[in-house]
Amino acid sequence: MPPSTDELDARLTRTRERMQRAGLDGLVVVDPANLHYLTGYDAWSFYMPQLLFVPLAGEPLLIMRAMDAGGAHRTASTPPERILGYPESLVHQRHAHPFDWAAERLREHGFATRGRVGYESEAHFFSVRAFHALERGIPEWQLVDSHDLVNWVRLVKSPVELELMRAAGRVASAAMQAGIDAVAEGARLNDVAAAIQFAQATGVEGAEGDYPAIVPMLPTGESADTPHMTFSARRLDAGEAVSIELAGAHRRYHAPLARTLTLGRPDARLERLADITAEGLELVLDGLRPGRAVADVHALWRDHIAKHGVEKPSRLGYSIGIGYPPDWGERTVSVRGDDETVLEPGVCLHIIAGMWMSGYGCELSESIAVTADGIEVLTSAPRALIVREGA
Amino acid sequence: MPPSTDELDARLTRTRERMQRAGLDGLVVVDPANLHYLTGYDAWSFYMPQLLFVPLAGEPLLIMRAMDAGGAHRTASTPPERILGYPESLVHQRHAHPFDWAAERLREHGFATRGRVGYESEAHFFSVRAFHALERGIPEWQLVDSHDLVNWVRLVKSPVELELMRAAGRVASAAMQAGIDAVAEGARLNDVAAAIQFAQATGVEGAEGDYPAIVPMLPTGESADTPHMTFSARRLDAGEAVSIELAGAHRRYHAPLARTLTLGRPDARLERLADITAEGLELVLDGLRPGRAVADVHALWRDHIAKHGVEKPSRLGYSIGIGYPPDWGERTVSVRGDDETVLEPGVCLHIIAGMWMSGYGCELSESIAVTADGIEVLTSAPRALIVREGA
Repeated sequence: MPPSTDELDARLTRTRERMQRAGLDGLVVVDPANLHYLTGYDAWSFYMPQLLFVPLAGEPLLIMRAMDAGGAHRTASTPPERILGYPESLVHQRHAHPFDWAAERLREHGFATRGRVGYESEAHFFSVRAFHALERGIPEWQLVDSHDLVNWVRLVKSPVELELMRAAGRVASAAMQAGIDAVAEGARLNDVAAAIQFAQATGVEGAEGDYPAIVPMLPTGESADTPHMTFSARRLDAGEAVSIELAGAHRRYHAPLARTLTLGRPDARLERLADITAEGLELVLDGLRPGRAVADVHALWRDHIAKHGVEKPSRLGYSIGIGYPPDWGERTVSVRGDDETVLEPGVCLHIIAGMWMSGYGCELSESIAVTADGIEVLTSAPRALIVREGA
Repeated sequence: MPPSTDELDARLTRTRERMQRAGLDGLVVVDPANLHYLTGYDAWSFYMPQLLFVPLAGEPLLIMRAMDAGGAHRTASTPPERILGYPESLVHQRHAHPFDWAAERLREHGFATRGRVGYESEAHFFSVRAFHALERGIPEWQLVDSHDLVNWVRLVKSPVELELMRAAGRVASAAMQAGIDAVAEGARLNDVAAAIQFAQATGVEGAEGDYPAIVPMLPTGESADTPHMTFSARRLDAGEAVSIELAGAHRRYHAPLARTLTLGRPDARLERLADITAEGLELVLDGLRPGRAVADVHALWRDHIAKHGVEKPSRLGYSIGIGYPPDWGERTVSVRGDDETVLEPGVCLHIIAGMWMSGYGCELSESIAVTADGIEVLTSAPRALIVREGA
């Protein structure tokens, strides 16, 4: 079920308005989330070079590996004649790059004219070599950093997108419950992850699961001071704490969710940290509303934890929506003291209080959508530290 | 269980030998598989800028986000004082980049000297902006394409690595069986994926699962002409064919495996294609041995399918080993007519006959390791087209 033509047209129009304001004549889009947003295209083909060229006027051109171009029309709204596949012989070659070929096709389509063309300087799948191939192949272009232009267009979700976010939130809540149920003394972390991944793919009644951009994270025991270690066959010990950070995904939309569990009574230090964190999260959720600057909401949090002698150098959250590996964040809004973005209805955030202290830690989060007068919480799980008894 | 010091020392030595031959004084490594190979470091932190600097002589320096640097010693052999964390305030900023900070630290550590420094031009997580930050920050460096130098070092596996590959193969075979069992008329593709992912994370007796670099691929029915469309809630119909491409992963090592199933009797066209493919795969597996050029093995395949009037423009396989999203290939050897790499014991390949015809297709593959006198097949599943009857 790809987005409707009206929806896609509106997205392209908003992108072009922003291009015009930035003085861009064209835009090279490689971020797979941006490709999906603008065309509906969805496949695991982003490990090979691919791009969407968006001219300020006229039809975009989609260029990808031949193997993927053939079936791209199954998800992309782009007309088949505007989807070009580069030859398989260009894959992983030392002396030729697929974007040499792309530059030639862009030229043939009349796009190699003098002008300012934006590129995604921080996109994960735009390699230095790909950039150099375009620079060399189309010297007429003045290539300029687009500063994640399409990502910023994605910040405010449409009603259709909000429905997808709600569905993702329900998948997240079910996956969290599966994770909570799997945590037990003696359980292996990879078995906890297996239970979560099963629930993530299955989904819930009315909202099938999709693959999340990141695997379940399970910071455990002493190593709970490092948030991004992935699962191993390590077994959970009595008395240990484990955090679960995961996302529910539905048709590429993501709602992340984090909780912390203890096997038996938590120690006093963790219990205190968890209480401070939960109070802080409540303050922030109460403080989020349209018209307010992100930095002001962050101040509520910072002042609260400072009162309790706690500091958190990392941001308290970020904007969410479409996600592809390796990240479910949108790379735009960061909930911290220097982000002056003013909230609007339709902005979706993952508010995550990740407290990674030395040798212990806890995580507590919700995914939210800003509404006309406050927020809607998309995810659901008990907010207090979750105590699991016995095996 | 990180690699032993001896193993890591040997890897670093081989890397430096190759650096010397390439005339490199230093190497900037960002590919997460290369970081893992050289240091043991393993975490889902690669969505943020991070690098390992390998000087030709002296101790390497690992630079990553502060949040991740704190616990990196839990997997990396790098001494904690050689692991530097850039401030959280540098994450996703418009006017500053973590690699500006990295350049300053490299300078402080005496690495900003005149010389040729290699970089990974085609690595997935080395952004154009990161490259420009290093270029600007250390103008003394002549930055040159390393042409995936560390990836080429990884091509020949050590005995320790071969054990990990065998374990990954066993996980792959179990996950394939779980997928075969889940395929049934009326089954949703996301439920088939859920069963596979559960088996992938669980693993087998003696070899726990790890997350694969790519989610299970299930090209189905007419859309089997496009290999990389990911799973949806589409239901399998009677008479339809579905391919399963997955990997077993064990401690970051990957063994991919592909099979094709039909719900009921296959149609004659698919049956014929599957027969030709299976015979071709046998020829190739029989033909693989040390001392032989990859191109010569590919010729066996090409001549066989040509005899039957079939063409396959895409490569027949690639080298495998450590994998991180979005790819489990090593980006070195490609099994095709122009790859003159001579096989050696310890080289591991995914031989994949992916036949994506217009409106139908089939896939058949094995993961193999080249031995002293032939190959060892790492994966196991019935080779013939698998026919599933009824639901």
